[in-house]
Amino acid sequence: MTTLWFDDYSVGLNVEVGAYEMTAGEMLAFASQFDPQPFHVDPDAAAESIYGGLIASGWHTGSVTMRLLADHVLGPASMGSPGLDELRWQAPVRAGDVLALHFVVMELLPSRSKPDRGIVKASLSLVNQDDVVVCSMVANLMMKRQPSSG
Amino acid sequence: MTTLWFDDYSVGLNVEVGAYEMTAGEMLAFASQFDPQPFHVDPDAAAESIYGGLIASGWHTGSVTMRLLADHVLGPASMGSPGLDELRWQAPVRAGDVLALHFVVMELLPSRSKPDRGIVKASLSLVNQDDVVVCSMVANLMMKRQPSSG
Repeated sequence: MTTLWFDDYSVGLNVEVGAYEMTAGEMLAFASQFDPQPFHVDPDAAAESIYGGLIASGWHTGSVTMRLLADHVLGPASMGSPGLDELRWQAPVRAGDVLALHFVVMELLPSRSKPDRGIVKASLSLVNQDDVVVCSMVANLMMKRQPSSG
Repeated sequence: MTTLWFDDYSVGLNVEVGAYEMTAGEMLAFASQFDPQPFHVDPDAAAESIYGGLIASGWHTGSVTMRLLADHVLGPASMGSPGLDELRWQAPVRAGDVLALHFVVMELLPSRSKPDRGIVKASLSLVNQDDVVVCSMVANLMMKRQPSSG
C-alpha cells in the first residue's frame, strides 16, 4: 500500500475495497462481549424479533468498517480520528454476508493551528454481496501532511 | 433491572451507571482484530505518536459504551438502533481507565407508521475516573411501547 499523505487525497477520490466475511462465530463472540441483546446472541429470541434471526451488532459492523479502512485505505499518515457523524445501520448484517468498504473523499480541511496535519472528511459505506448498503457514516480522518509540504 | 418501555422514558431522565475497566490485554485484542494501527497495537510506535503511548481504538470505546447501555439501561423493550450522530472521541483511553456511562434522554419520538414503537433520542457520554468525557454521541434507540398503550 502506497502511503497517502493528507496532500495526496483529492475530493471525489472513490475506492471500493475489501471482502470481509461475517461468520456466526465472530458475530456471537463480539455481541457476547459488547452487545448481548437477544437479537444478537439468542437464536430463538432473534427468530421472534423484527429481524427474523440473529444479526450482527451495529458496533461489530462499524468495527469491520474500521478494519477495512485500516487495511486498504489508511497507512502511516493516519493520526486517528476526532469523530464521525451520521452513523446509520441501514440493513441487517447476517452470518455469511461478505462486506466491502466504499470510501469517497468529501472534503479536505488543512489544520489552521497545526501545519503538520489535516482532516480528510470521507463518506464510508459498508456494502454487502447484494450491493445493499448495510452501514454508512461520515468520518473525520486526521492525516499527516507530506513532511516536505508542511 | 425493571423493563423500561418507550412510554416510561421522559425527557431529561439522567443516569450515570457502570464501571468498565479497560485492560491492556483487551485493548490489544480488540485493536489487533479491528483497528491494527500502530498507536493501538505497537507500544514503541505509540510512544512516538501524538498520543505518547498506546490508546484504545475508538470503536472499542464505542463498543464499551454499548455494553454499559445494554447492561444498565436497555432491556426487553429494546429493538435495536437505526443509527447515531455526533460520535466524538474526545480524549484518549488508556489501560487502567475505568469508564462509566452518562445517559440523558433528549427527545421522545413515537413512530408515526408503527404504533408499537418509538425512538428515544439520548445523549451518551463515556466518562473516565477523572471525570473526563472520553467519548460521546447522540443515539437513536428504538424501543417497544408498553403493550397496553399501543
